[in-house]
Amino acid sequence: MAELRKDSLLDRWVLIAEERAAKPQEFDDRPVVRRLGDCPFCEGSEAETPNEVLALREPGSRHDGRGWRIRVIPNKYPAVNLRVLSLPTVSTQPQPDGLFQQASADGVHEVIIESPRHVTMAGELSDAETAAVLGVYQARLRTLRAEAAERGLRYVQIFRNVGEAAGASIEHLHSQLIGLPLVPTLIADELQAATQHFAHTGRCPWCDLAEAEVASGRRIVEATARFALVCPYASRFPYEMQLLPRGHEANFDDAADDHIREAAALLRRGLARLERVCDPASYNVILHTAPFGLPEAPRFHWHVEILPRLVKAAGFEWGTGVHINPVSPERAAAELRAVKLG
Amino acid sequence: MAELRKDSLLDRWVLIAEERAAKPQEFDDRPVVRRLGDCPFCEGSEAETPNEVLALREPGSRHDGRGWRIRVIPNKYPAVNLRVLSLPTVSTQPQPDGLFQQASADGVHEVIIESPRHVTMAGELSDAETAAVLGVYQARLRTLRAEAAERGLRYVQIFRNVGEAAGASIEHLHSQLIGLPLVPTLIADELQAATQHFAHTGRCPWCDLAEAEVASGRRIVEATARFALVCPYASRFPYEMQLLPRGHEANFDDAADDHIREAAALLRRGLARLERVCDPASYNVILHTAPFGLPEAPRFHWHVEILPRLVKAAGFEWGTGVHINPVSPERAAAELRAVKLG
Repeated sequence: MAELRKDSLLDRWVLIAEERAAKPQEFDDRPVVRRLGDCPFCEGSEAETPNEVLALREPGSRHDGRGWRIRVIPNKYPAVNLRVLSLPTVSTQPQPDGLFQQASADGVHEVIIESPRHVTMAGELSDAETAAVLGVYQARLRTLRAEAAERGLRYVQIFRNVGEAAGASIEHLHSQLIGLPLVPTLIADELQAATQHFAHTGRCPWCDLAEAEVASGRRIVEATARFALVCPYASRFPYEMQLLPRGHEANFDDAADDHIREAAALLRRGLARLERVCDPASYNVILHTAPFGLPEAPRFHWHVEILPRLVKAAGFEWGTGVHINPVSPERAAAELRAVKLG
Repeated sequence: MAELRKDSLLDRWVLIAEERAAKPQEFDDRPVVRRLGDCPFCEGSEAETPNEVLALREPGSRHDGRGWRIRVIPNKYPAVNLRVLSLPTVSTQPQPDGLFQQASADGVHEVIIESPRHVTMAGELSDAETAAVLGVYQARLRTLRAEAAERGLRYVQIFRNVGEAAGASIEHLHSQLIGLPLVPTLIADELQAATQHFAHTGRCPWCDLAEAEVASGRRIVEATARFALVCPYASRFPYEMQLLPRGHEANFDDAADDHIREAAALLRRGLARLERVCDPASYNVILHTAPFGLPEAPRFHWHVEILPRLVKAAGFEWGTGVHINPVSPERAAAELRAVKLG
């Protein structure tokens, strides 16, 4: 049984998921990375994976057979308990002294296979394929948001790990989705900061940020009519990027189709730039969207974080939470802008 | 010039340190790890390093020559500006809209070479050598605490990276010390939680924690009269450990010599256990001690965190702050306890 536990002092939760445990000696060497020829995510290997939850399919093709463009399956090694709850029974159980708080980690853990071809870099997808991936994110978010109360879900984290240094053990391009019975601290902190900023100024800080960044241009990689791709002012990682809507949009799943197409093209170009500046590139792509069922959720403003993994977080970073970044975002943006895309 | 920047929303600071920057192509491959035969930290290679700040030396030996047991030098590639300030001029400069806060990153960055021999694992040091290392930590902390107001220092983070996966680029056993002009959020959060716990209960949460863990024994790796070595209830990493004094001690640098000897022996045994369970082991060792000059600092309770780096933080962890740990601390403690030490 996976379990959520809170740190005895900090508002920091961990997922203890022994089902994912390997024997200690299996940690000794680098994890096996499944590549072409041994890839369970390629078209034709559907029998190697759990049954699909959702797929974009050619007319007439069969479930869990060939003929798909994007395929969503449950994760074979889930980090959470996949039992569907009929009632939201999940709640933290504080002990009298508060030192050992825990909650049952019931939720959802899915894999989104982004192409039937053995694509390994996000920049290799076309704009239309990238838009289709974002559309599938939206479809799963809409379904899970609708079922959130029944299933006890409070937040869904969608992310993509590309490259071994970024934690990918299957190189075939895929995203993951983990639904949780609590709002993670990072998301809660962002929402709280936004709510406070709004209370003080009457404006959304992300809207302000997008406007200020586009106006200065110093950290802009590329901007379109509706979106800005920026190297954040306080980037933790070299060549870190953030894609954010210039107008206010709380829920990613509410974004209109033409917005999604515009965001997808900008995201794909951004990742293609990154893959040219840092070759080979390893990076995490993280979607932050409004949590479920909170009255202040409309104050959220969805955005995508791109975290290249060129330098390792070490003792200083884990000890303080302060990252050392040897590449200023101004320099990173200039280098990324300078890439000539085909 | 290194610069501290605050995230536009979160209370999260980064150190932008371009002096540490390499050209982008230098990120492409794994960093060069300097090993025996090419090691600037071995006895006899003193000329390859900056002049020592402090050393434990044999009587009659010369500064920056042979004949030392532990040697402290400035870091050749500092993450902070090493200018000594005559006045604490460092302050954050919030902009009207608060989106782009920054502070000059003036501070201290030193390397503590822990042995003249080419030792690569902390478990290879003797108890006496480990105690001497902790004594040198104390000496530097005392000096920097005394100079804190003059130099504008608010916190000193001491840490040790062992193994490539933990971020070490020189395998010769060494610690680092970074002094900062602000209290990092993680430390400030711990101090705030402790202050609140004390206000509610009249007790220190770390004292309570040590007592509860020793009483239950489930997560104890080893306990002595004055110290507990425990796998934390909400461990982020497999085989994570925490060493904490069972009695209240705010400042590590105030710990008595016999306490330090007891802590050192327990720490060394704990790391030797870890090096046996996870071979080869990569880990970060992090000392948390009270920040400088805060009235509530006596509510802090120093402790050492040991973070093994067997699994990579990936998109989910960076996106949510929630770590997935496949080894429960109860199982980790049982495996670590079972190791037969020589």
